[in-house]
Amino acid sequence: MRLRYILPALLIGAGSALAQETPIVHDGEFEFLRAQFGEAWDAQDVEVDAKLTEIRAANGGKPPNFLYILIDDVSFGQMGDRKMNYVMGIETPSINQLATEGMSLMRMYTEPSCTPTRTAMLTGRHPIRAGVEEVKVALVGEGLPTSEVTLPEILKQVGYNTAHIGKWHQGDIEQSYPHNQGFDWAAFPLHQQVQLSLMIPEAMRSNAMLGYVPEGQNNQFLLDERFKPYGLVTGVEAEAGGPALEVDMSAGEVWTQAKYEEMNERYQRQALEQLERVASEDAPFFLQYWPLYPLNFVYPDQAISRNGGFHADKLQLLDGWIGDLLAKLEETGTADNTIVVLMADNGLMYHYEGSSGLNQLIYRGGKTQHLEGGVRTDAFIRWPGVIEPNTAAGDIVHVSDIFTTMARIAGATAFIPRDRVIDGIDQTALLLNGEGNGRRDYVYVYEGPVLRSVVKQEFKMHLPAPGQPGAAAPTYNIYRDPREEHPLVGYSLWAGASFQDMIKRHQKMIAKYPHSEIGKGTPYEGIENLRPETELTRDVFMSWQ
Amino acid sequence: MRLRYILPALLIGAGSALAQETPIVHDGEFEFLRAQFGEAWDAQDVEVDAKLTEIRAANGGKPPNFLYILIDDVSFGQMGDRKMNYVMGIETPSINQLATEGMSLMRMYTEPSCTPTRTAMLTGRHPIRAGVEEVKVALVGEGLPTSEVTLPEILKQVGYNTAHIGKWHQGDIEQSYPHNQGFDWAAFPLHQQVQLSLMIPEAMRSNAMLGYVPEGQNNQFLLDERFKPYGLVTGVEAEAGGPALEVDMSAGEVWTQAKYEEMNERYQRQALEQLERVASEDAPFFLQYWPLYPLNFVYPDQAISRNGGFHADKLQLLDGWIGDLLAKLEETGTADNTIVVLMADNGLMYHYEGSSGLNQLIYRGGKTQHLEGGVRTDAFIRWPGVIEPNTAAGDIVHVSDIFTTMARIAGATAFIPRDRVIDGIDQTALLLNGEGNGRRDYVYVYEGPVLRSVVKQEFKMHLPAPGQPGAAAPTYNIYRDPREEHPLVGYSLWAGASFQDMIKRHQKMIAKYPHSEIGKGTPYEGIENLRPETELTRDVFMSWQ
Repeated sequence: MRLRYILPALLIGAGSALAQETPIVHDGEFEFLRAQFGEAWDAQDVEVDAKLTEIRAANGGKPPNFLYILIDDVSFGQMGDRKMNYVMGIETPSINQLATEGMSLMRMYTEPSCTPTRTAMLTGRHPIRAGVEEVKVALVGEGLPTSEVTLPEILKQVGYNTAHIGKWHQGDIEQSYPHNQGFDWAAFPLHQQVQLSLMIPEAMRSNAMLGYVPEGQNNQFLLDERFKPYGLVTGVEAEAGGPALEVDMSAGEVWTQAKYEEMNERYQRQALEQLERVASEDAPFFLQYWPLYPLNFVYPDQAISRNGGFHADKLQLLDGWIGDLLAKLEETGTADNTIVVLMADNGLMYHYEGSSGLNQLIYRGGKTQHLEGGVRTDAFIRWPGVIEPNTAAGDIVHVSDIFTTMARIAGATAFIPRDRVIDGIDQTALLLNGEGNGRRDYVYVYEGPVLRSVVKQEFKMHLPAPGQPGAAAPTYNIYRDPREEHPLVGYSLWAGASFQDMIKRHQKMIAKYPHSEIGKGTPYEGIENLRPETELTRDVFMSWQ
Repeated sequence: MRLRYILPALLIGAGSALAQETPIVHDGEFEFLRAQFGEAWDAQDVEVDAKLTEIRAANGGKPPNFLYILIDDVSFGQMGDRKMNYVMGIETPSINQLATEGMSLMRMYTEPSCTPTRTAMLTGRHPIRAGVEEVKVALVGEGLPTSEVTLPEILKQVGYNTAHIGKWHQGDIEQSYPHNQGFDWAAFPLHQQVQLSLMIPEAMRSNAMLGYVPEGQNNQFLLDERFKPYGLVTGVEAEAGGPALEVDMSAGEVWTQAKYEEMNERYQRQALEQLERVASEDAPFFLQYWPLYPLNFVYPDQAISRNGGFHADKLQLLDGWIGDLLAKLEETGTADNTIVVLMADNGLMYHYEGSSGLNQLIYRGGKTQHLEGGVRTDAFIRWPGVIEPNTAAGDIVHVSDIFTTMARIAGATAFIPRDRVIDGIDQTALLLNGEGNGRRDYVYVYEGPVLRSVVKQEFKMHLPAPGQPGAAAPTYNIYRDPREEHPLVGYSLWAGASFQDMIKRHQKMIAKYPHSEIGKGTPYEGIENLRPETELTRDVFMSWQ
């Protein structure tokens, strides 16, 4: 959607000079760091600016392109590392190679689930600040509100071409669609993968979705035939501001695993096509590829991985596709001035554990949980000639930092709104100067609207149960106890003192800048070719509201 | 001790020709593989022999030297890998570098505890075949029997110089000492690290050994002052067949953490000295360095690792020492013809979990357990010009394979005894030809005398409780469920059929070649300078037997 926060024309392009005059509103915890390191950071920022100017000059005045690949539901350790490849019996050579060509961000924290992680990256904010929790698979009439200013919107202000391909999961209402949130072009499923790969006959036969298909059970007492999603919009395509069209789905057609696989192949094809298109233009680009794979609940006809699980096989397939995309980037001649970021959005959905292969690895927990297994993900960033190859950084990074950092690298910091809290920290110095130059040593970890834990340095406190005193909160040393199994009761006073101060600072900033509301509306508005069954489903949904 | 199995003189040096005529007795499971692959392996062995001959010719007729470094109690993933370094906050750059210079054995299985793993490597056999279970910290009057034929004894038959430095843990009786089991020279503690680093005042003050020192508790009801080890022999040194002398310990002296640290430093110094000595001689060498670190239970004055735990810090220190040793190997000019193997003996002793940093990582369980966390260890092998650098192999290897493989590489296969089961498989083809050329797809996993699980390919069956039918045994897919948390009940019939056949084959071989007895004797015989308190302790020990 159009920017609601309009900058005076004279400021366009003024960049960091303005930013220093009107600082970004960060959380209280960051201000505590700025009080200690502000002067050193200001001095370092002069060098950072000089380096960014130099890089841009070396590229004919063009700021770097961004290729942002966000993979769904992958545990920390599942990709980019030989040792863990062997543990799981999955080969990810393309991602391993990418890891050696850039910097591995070893303490990347996300939100614990798909929608909030993606919102945090797009807006630079903990999603709860915009009322966003988790967007469900079914109809909700909710989503990312127009009032949020997204990274592609900011980048468009300084001339970027933008495109989005793949999973979106930011809501089923018009204002939330990617082509209304800063993308020139978008191809995406309206919902997510549950109805696309799990709620299908094949998944029932794989023992992953019991009784979903009527033929799979005795229906003697069945009343509500609409308990299971029906007629949902599948994949759509659109240009910015224009109408969306559902593709590859006819009235009355039944969704199948074959269609899901075709959809994945189409997105891969479109990622390649869009990359060719935006790379051929003069303007810099921001290309976002959010694959649906490895999410998949049907066994392959012939396993390609040693693991053979339905998730593992698609991850291995996807790794090859990413190799193809990076090869295409090379072919276009734009690779040298393109920053590639590849990461996962959260841990494995280990609720489907067991024989599926969706199990815990190094860290305990998984998707939906504040445990490290939910919010620690693999993350790699390549910037040829700038980021030292084959490096790694143990500094803490949060997914919202991508927003602020990419905005700065693009010279668009001035377009970050100043009327709200921005959680994302500018980590440009970390990318340019390497490990130890991060500007964050904390993360607040939410599950939906609830603050569940606080990370500071090597410690992590799980919030006490409601009504319990702070001293009852278990605190863990993440290096010594990566699985958060042995709270430091009796070994530290952190839980009762310093961590409680952190929480108070966070709450005071929320009081000063209250959360706004999630966007609301009629589902599927702006899609021109709704199928009759889709219209029926939407009408029923709206009828009782 | 001298070889009991004496070969006719004419066979000395006859090597593999003889070996083919009088095959090594392997377990039944291996014969099932040989029935399927025997012809292909025979053909491959002709090439392997040619390659070994060629390598030896290129080194003036001298077979390769061996430097075997065995590290105590380290979890799979703790060393040699950047990702896991970051997880634990421990840097192991020297070992990581070694990993890139050779092959990482990604499925190395050990026995689950120190003594049995070391026995398996020395004898090529599951230790229970010689009656060896776990040798305790205190006086036992037991140990590795003379009747076992060790790898250094075999290598001596073809002219190797041998030396052992560091942990030994094969028993407190004369026949078990390393200088009586094939080593020309040895420096080692008679027992292990528990009384050297845990049963000391400093460990009590680190909250790791409660009440060990009388001053640490009220002794109102104390009767037995000898419940805690007293007067045990600490470190000794000896030449082959000669008397041993205890070093650095006077009558009445109290053992301390400072003395433990000095002992570790001495072994490191002696490893460097012995390496210099054996490298300067014409004969090939087998040098064995088994550090006592990282076992340690006292916090450092100033942490060197990000982890800061007492185990982590010593692992990081040890990593630097290993770097020094490898640099020394380079200096001596023998690195090119030296095979370096570095591995751990079993998983972390996570019974000291919690704030210590001794916690579970990828695999569940640890030392003493048949779970993957107990028996899967990091293992790296470097052989310049022969093993492809920066490779990895997912083939299953058991620590006993080192015995058989090193014997073959040294041209000493003919000296492997044929009157007993040898569990170690010759894995030379794997080293020469890389991943996929391993000759084992199974492991029997014992806890002491009890068979607790059976690994075959990607599956692992935990044996059912006594009296339970085979079908009740939980079976796991190790790739999909590395933590062995979700047994495949209902997903496979392996437990009830094929795995039971494997166990029967194993039992039948035991019936045919029954286990022998552990060595027995009077503790400390052959040590010339026993302290009075040591003599007292020994006399009391012997008095009631």
